[in-house]
Amino acid sequence: MTRITATYDIETPSGLAHAAAVLAGEQSTGTFVRLASETDELRDRSGARVENITQTATAKTPSLPSRKTGDTYERGLVTVSWPMGNFGTSLPTLMSTLAGNLFELAELSAIRLVDVDLPEQFAHDHPGPQFGVEGTRAFMGGHKGPLIGTIIKPSIGFTPDETADLVKTLVTAGIDFIKDDELQANGPDCPFEDRLNAVMRVINDHAERTGKRVLYAVNITDEIDQMWRNLDAMDRVGATCAMVCVNSVGLTGLRAVRSRSKALIHGHRAGWGLFSRSPDIGVDFGVMQKLWRLAGVDHLHVNGLANKFTESDDVVARAARSVQQPISKHGGPAHTAMPVYSSGQTIWQVDPARQLLGNDDFIYCAGGGIMSHPSGVADGVNSLRAAAEAARLDIPLEEFATPNSPLRKAIETFKKPNITLSDF
Amino acid sequence: MTRITATYDIETPSGLAHAAAVLAGEQSTGTFVRLASETDELRDRSGARVENITQTATAKTPSLPSRKTGDTYERGLVTVSWPMGNFGTSLPTLMSTLAGNLFELAELSAIRLVDVDLPEQFAHDHPGPQFGVEGTRAFMGGHKGPLIGTIIKPSIGFTPDETADLVKTLVTAGIDFIKDDELQANGPDCPFEDRLNAVMRVINDHAERTGKRVLYAVNITDEIDQMWRNLDAMDRVGATCAMVCVNSVGLTGLRAVRSRSKALIHGHRAGWGLFSRSPDIGVDFGVMQKLWRLAGVDHLHVNGLANKFTESDDVVARAARSVQQPISKHGGPAHTAMPVYSSGQTIWQVDPARQLLGNDDFIYCAGGGIMSHPSGVADGVNSLRAAAEAARLDIPLEEFATPNSPLRKAIETFKKPNITLSDF
Repeated sequence: MTRITATYDIETPSGLAHAAAVLAGEQSTGTFVRLASETDELRDRSGARVENITQTATAKTPSLPSRKTGDTYERGLVTVSWPMGNFGTSLPTLMSTLAGNLFELAELSAIRLVDVDLPEQFAHDHPGPQFGVEGTRAFMGGHKGPLIGTIIKPSIGFTPDETADLVKTLVTAGIDFIKDDELQANGPDCPFEDRLNAVMRVINDHAERTGKRVLYAVNITDEIDQMWRNLDAMDRVGATCAMVCVNSVGLTGLRAVRSRSKALIHGHRAGWGLFSRSPDIGVDFGVMQKLWRLAGVDHLHVNGLANKFTESDDVVARAARSVQQPISKHGGPAHTAMPVYSSGQTIWQVDPARQLLGNDDFIYCAGGGIMSHPSGVADGVNSLRAAAEAARLDIPLEEFATPNSPLRKAIETFKKPNITLSDF
Repeated sequence: MTRITATYDIETPSGLAHAAAVLAGEQSTGTFVRLASETDELRDRSGARVENITQTATAKTPSLPSRKTGDTYERGLVTVSWPMGNFGTSLPTLMSTLAGNLFELAELSAIRLVDVDLPEQFAHDHPGPQFGVEGTRAFMGGHKGPLIGTIIKPSIGFTPDETADLVKTLVTAGIDFIKDDELQANGPDCPFEDRLNAVMRVINDHAERTGKRVLYAVNITDEIDQMWRNLDAMDRVGATCAMVCVNSVGLTGLRAVRSRSKALIHGHRAGWGLFSRSPDIGVDFGVMQKLWRLAGVDHLHVNGLANKFTESDDVVARAARSVQQPISKHGGPAHTAMPVYSSGQTIWQVDPARQLLGNDDFIYCAGGGIMSHPSGVADGVNSLRAAAEAARLDIPLEEFATPNSPLRKAIETFKKPNITLSDF
């Protein structure tokens, strides 16, 4: 396959066929008025092609304000393809083409990029995750099962030493994974390198005594030269996981981190709501996660089932599964990443989180679900690990939990949330 | 001033005061449940503060779907401030904080970041435009007045030689500025360096013969290492303007270009509709343009009056003015950039485009407005230059145009668009 294919959910007052043609034209050889220089031969070579149109609804009012109006607004899925000759496998130009000016077309009163089908060549031309699941487990000394993790809270405000104190509590409690909050990067009140060094002393000390190497995803998010210096600082103290806020640095910043990193890249999607929240404009996670994986994330946040934010469980489930699927269905390296569940997670979401993946290759981050356990942080971690074991054995939590165990106490403490999964 | 202040337009089923508090908490020291470790002292030092709340409307239905619902939805402007100690002047962490997880808060059924007030320190800590207006004019040999420019069309599909042929027509016609389309970067069918070299031969030859150095904004958008190689290639052939699709490369990619560029940086905002199009989620241009200028753009696209896309004329006018205003109202380098008008521009929008700025420090790009002139491309350029002179002298076009002049023919050819400016 030598064409890139994208599917959009659009709404238009101009008729779906016309709107699709405008979209394809604007994003390839066309402009508002056809030029003599846009010859048939040039169009055949470089033009985008409308591959399919499926109407899904009709409305009386537009979903988004627009210069163009009409009596009715047709909604539907349109699939458009581009020849690879236009931009090869460049991710930034893929973005300019698939998610560029088209968002502003007056012919569209809604537009979401919902799917992209990439030729195998993309999977070959990009580095992808450097370590992935196997590498993550290897860094930890062969860890089995899902990683039980947490986020340093308060998100911001701790000094480096206060951070290290909390990390000591957490590693002593047997946690597998600890991450900085996305707000905590390299501010004057908690400088990156001071925090890194303080935390890594605790982690290295714990590893020496126990043989267990806890992953610390330290937030390196910054300008590129500073992120590279942060990677060097990590290397000096044996830190193995770099967290990057992928929207805050942008695609090329992520790729620049990948080019120099000896550590895992933990992709945080802060700001994702801007892309995902409106049903009428945006980009589906299934599209962006391919680009982030091609650029090199080993782990990628997917929100959590019954989360505290706004995404439905179906959206979260699709996101989690998407990062374990191959980049291109036509072949090449799969470049799979580990999904990271987070936000309002307790023992109750472990089982469905595992079942929808069918494996243990995920990171499960809980805050209150660990820290609010009635008999302490260690029992909080143990209760989640027991829940993961129950999920692996496909035994209901209530049945699996022995009397007075950490899991039993967690069952009695945390309210079972309502999870609504239609696809799984 | 040592706090960063941001204003949001939000809608909520939970009451504006509560929603504002949740937003401030989520983006600083708070989490869903207050932790014992979030002490009053820590909160005083690092917490975000709600500075102001102004209700603007009440609705019966939510603007965006959300997990939290209510009987009514209050809408209003909330202003929140953060201490600089949390993240200093880091632009990526500014983004994670001001435009991060808050877009996904269940308490919000609409959220737009509409303004940011940056301390003077930001203007000192970032490079800003390297050349700006004065540098742009100097590169051209002292050009006066607005730059009359155009975009190479078809957007994509020309070979390097075909591109150079069109550029020859344009420079012979007396144009000041030529840019690649955002779709044309470094695809296999028109490799960057071949195109650059072919075009620069024409431009350098023209400069030698006439003394006029036309600016060619060549689209360098790519991964960072490739953009740096592109800059080197530009340097070798005396190219003086690098176009970067700021959304496609991300903030840190733009800054990385600035760190190595000896050329002007022409900022293209392809994809901006995703941020701007919905009234209920997004970021106002006035906010993002500050970040792009701090990171180093010399020129920045602002759409055009009576454009072919969806933005209203008031939005375009505010955008154009914003890039000429200082970064911080508290002091420091102003870091102003040149606004670039584009999309459906003819002789008719020159006057209002100038009046709303009050100066000639802008780039005016026309496609059909030049190429469709009845007596040819040179007269197309001349008609726009005459329109700019009429605007400077504040004389109506119809009065300024002499009989049979290029401007007169343009008046007779191009339909006068309806421009609606309320603020100016």
